[in-house]
Formats: sequence, C-alpha cells, structure tokens
Amino acid sequence: MNNWKEIDQHAKEWVYEAGKMIRSSFEKTLSIHTKSNPNDLVTDIDQAVEAYLCEKIRTHFPDHKILGEEGAGHELTTLDGIVWIIDPIDGTMNFVHQQRNFCISVGIYEDGKGIIGLIYDVVHDELYHAVKGQGAYMNETPLPKLSRDTILEESILAINATWVIENKRIDPTILAPVVKKARGTRSFGSAALEFAYVATGRLDGYITMRLSPWDIAAGVVIVEEVGGIATTLEGNEIDFLKKSSIFVANPNVHQQVMEKYLKDHFTK
Amino acid sequence: MNNWKEIDQHAKEWVYEAGKMIRSSFEKTLSIHTKSNPNDLVTDIDQAVEAYLCEKIRTHFPDHKILGEEGAGHELTTLDGIVWIIDPIDGTMNFVHQQRNFCISVGIYEDGKGIIGLIYDVVHDELYHAVKGQGAYMNETPLPKLSRDTILEESILAINATWVIENKRIDPTILAPVVKKARGTRSFGSAALEFAYVATGRLDGYITMRLSPWDIAAGVVIVEEVGGIATTLEGNEIDFLKKSSIFVANPNVHQQVMEKYLKDHFTK
Repeated sequence: MNNWKEIDQHAKEWVYEAGKMIRSSFEKTLSIHTKSNPNDLVTDIDQAVEAYLCEKIRTHFPDHKILGEEGAGHELTTLDGIVWIIDPIDGTMNFVHQQRNFCISVGIYEDGKGIIGLIYDVVHDELYHAVKGQGAYMNETPLPKLSRDTILEESILAINATWVIENKRIDPTILAPVVKKARGTRSFGSAALEFAYVATGRLDGYITMRLSPWDIAAGVVIVEEVGGIATTLEGNEIDFLKKSSIFVANPNVHQQVMEKYLKDHFTK
Repeated sequence: MNNWKEIDQHAKEWVYEAGKMIRSSFEKTLSIHTKSNPNDLVTDIDQAVEAYLCEKIRTHFPDHKILGEEGAGHELTTLDGIVWIIDPIDGTMNFVHQQRNFCISVGIYEDGKGIIGLIYDVVHDELYHAVKGQGAYMNETPLPKLSRDTILEESILAINATWVIENKRIDPTILAPVVKKARGTRSFGSAALEFAYVATGRLDGYITMRLSPWDIAAGVVIVEEVGGIATTLEGNEIDFLKKSSIFVANPNVHQQVMEKYLKDHFTK
C-alpha cells in the first residue's frame, strides 16, 4: 500500500523549495533559449527546477515514474504505477515577460487516476492543492464546491482570442457563439493557473485547444475535487499520454456549453 | 500656480486609504447592483470609494472638478481647469468574481493635459504612478523607458476575444491578423491594469473598443511617461470627454500595427 500522506508531504515541500529557487532567480538575468517555436520559451530556471524535482522524486521514490515538460522524465507509453506529471514552470511566456501569472504544476497519478494535485502560484505564494476525496484548498483555506446554478450568461470564461480567429486547431465559428453568450472572457496564459481559477470560481470555465498532460494533470485533480468537470472539447475523457483540447468548467456551465454549442459539432 | 506636489501627495494618501476600504470590504458580503447591463456590475463599495474620494477632493481643492464613473462627479463639457478623472474600482467584474485583477484609477488633468496618474492594484499593494515629466514608478521602483526594438512578432498583446468575433464595434477581420501575428494574447479585464502592464513591459500593447475617460486617464499619463503611445484605434488623439477605442503600446509596436494593420482600414 502506498503512503499517500508521505508522498503528499514531500511533494508540497519540494514544490515550495522549487518556488524559492524561482523567486531567487528573479534577481539574476534570465538566459532564454528558444524551443521549437518562439511562443515556446524556456529558461535555465525551468530546466533547473525540473531537474531538482526529478532528483528528489528518484531519490525518495525510485519506483515512481515521471512525465515532464522539459524532458528530464521518462518516455511513457502507459500510466501504470505511480506517475508524477510535472511542469516546472507553467506559463513560461508570462514568466519571461511578466515575472507573474505562472506556476509550478505537479499532478501525481496512480494507474491513470489523479490522486494529488499541486499548483503553486509562486509570486503570490498561493498553493492550490487537493488529494482525491479529501477536498481542495488554497493554502489553508478549503475551496467550496462549485455552484450548480451558474449559467453561461453569468460566467467569466478563459479563452484566448486565437481560438476564435482562423487557426490550425478549430473552426473559429464553433467557439464564437460561446464567447458572445458569456458575461465576459479573459486569458491569463497559464493553463494550470486557469484550472486553479476555475476551481476557486474566479473563472467559470476555460477552453483551449492543445494542452500537454503536464499543463493539466494537477488542475484536473483540484477542479474535480470541487465538483468541476474537465473533458476534451468533444466531451471525452482526457488521455494523459497525449496532447488534447480541454474544456474545464463549473458543472452546470460545462453541461450547458456541451449541449448547446459543442455537441452538435462533434457528433455529426 | 498650482502646488502639484501637494496635490500628488494627497492623491496618493487618499488612494491608499481607499484601498484599505476595499480590502476591509472583502470581509463582508458584497451587495451587487446591476447597472445598464449585466456586464456592468457595481457594488456598494464602488460607490462608497467614489464618495470618499470626491469628499476629500472637494474639501481640499474646492475649485477642482471631478469626472467619475459612479456619477458622484460633475457633468463636464470641457476639461478646463484641474479635473480629477476617477474610477473607484476599475475591473468591477473581476472585483466581484475574483477579488483580484481590479484597481483604483485616478488621473489628474489640467486644461485637458494629463499631469498625474495613479493606478493602485489593491490586492497586490502595487501603486503605479507618474507625474508628467518626472518619470513613472511602481511603488518605489522607477519604470524604465519602453524598448524601441520590440516587434509585434515578439509581443504579448492584451485583446479580448470579443473584438475578433462578430460584435457591434468593429469588423472582426480587422484585428484578427494582429492577433495572429503577435507572439501571444491575453485579457485581464481591467483597462487601467492593462495600461499599467503596458507601462511595465508585461504587455507590449492593449487594444479595446470602448472605454470611458476614467478607465484610461491615469494610464495614459503613466504609459506616456515611459515612452508608450496611446491613441484611438484610428491613431487619433484621445478625447477625455467621451468614450473611445484605445490602442496603447510600446512605441515601435504601435507604429508597426498602425502602419501594417490599422491605417488602411480607417483612411479609406
């Protein structure tokens, strides 16, 4: 039997430690490399934080596996066993340009099921966290269950303008009516933080087209713990071994948007 | 001759005091009224903060005029003399839904020219401020002049998805190519904060279609003090007596976007 309490305590301790590394890096000049495209910035500190987390996990839990953005983890073909799915800095573009609106994201899964989710907003010192079945928290504050009465017309949705103009991933006319109907839209540029905001009710939903497992693994655990729903845009279960579209929301808003705006597009 | 130093000191003191009122209001349940449409929430605290600021201004500077969102100010037909242009809570929807990403905005103008700009991000305790000709600051930190080398392809722009779908204000095909070309887009839902982010280089530009003078009066002073450019979307000077579209940006990005994407649409 796995000692989840011990795993959770270590995970939190290491995430806080990683946060300190990031804060202290602000003092230094950031040395920025370019990944596959200019939108995909990565910094020395990003790699250093992943290396730190991987080293800790391997030392303490040698039988656990790691799936991570910066490539220090394993090439996984299944999610059997315990897998740490980590993004050392989610929102690297914000990290570089803004030194805010980024976070550390750590999801811990067992046989493909989310058990622990940690999203640490380093600059605000806000840790969003959940253990499956034990409620979700921001720091010490329990997060209430999401309201089942919220409707799209009263919702703030996170959706990037990119998805309602011509783009490679989705016909822009599919999401335009959702944007029109919502009370307001926002875009923060960090998927994990946007999940955390859905979990706290600051956002009522978040729609995006192409996320990796490490962008969302922690967020899914936290959001589901407060009764939120996370699926692909087609309404399917998320596969944590590949990239996918994401629609995460308050349960009522998720149902309303799926039924009124999305279902017909994907079941034709 | 006006004692601008005294005016500036009072303005800062009152803005900090107003911030305290807002922070303490978080303890209480917010009683929300609906203004002209559901997107335009206003709260008791919004009105209380404006009443507080107006009372202070009238007592200390009885010959100054006030232009404000909540209607406690004057009906102005000119900007002659000294005019305080105030928004007690810019980003009221964020205030209600998120208890963050809102601010107090105070611009002080003389004969239509911006002299003092104060934008106070209450939750983060960050005061962005400038006196014309004396540089801009975030708290005690001077803000550097904006780079003249930034190009759109490397820029993060704030633009709401609303302006690239069918809407009442602008043909959505005008801004879609700008969104496509930018490195990334964001939307925070507080115009004054978005101005402050342009001034700090966290954003390289911000485009929106319909703002009131109190949304932007402070921001224009601060942005211009670091070399940023604020105009209407047509490239015209802003009229602080009416609503207008806004394009505020890093000087190079402003020029590039005006010349390549906007000029032709508005001079035909």
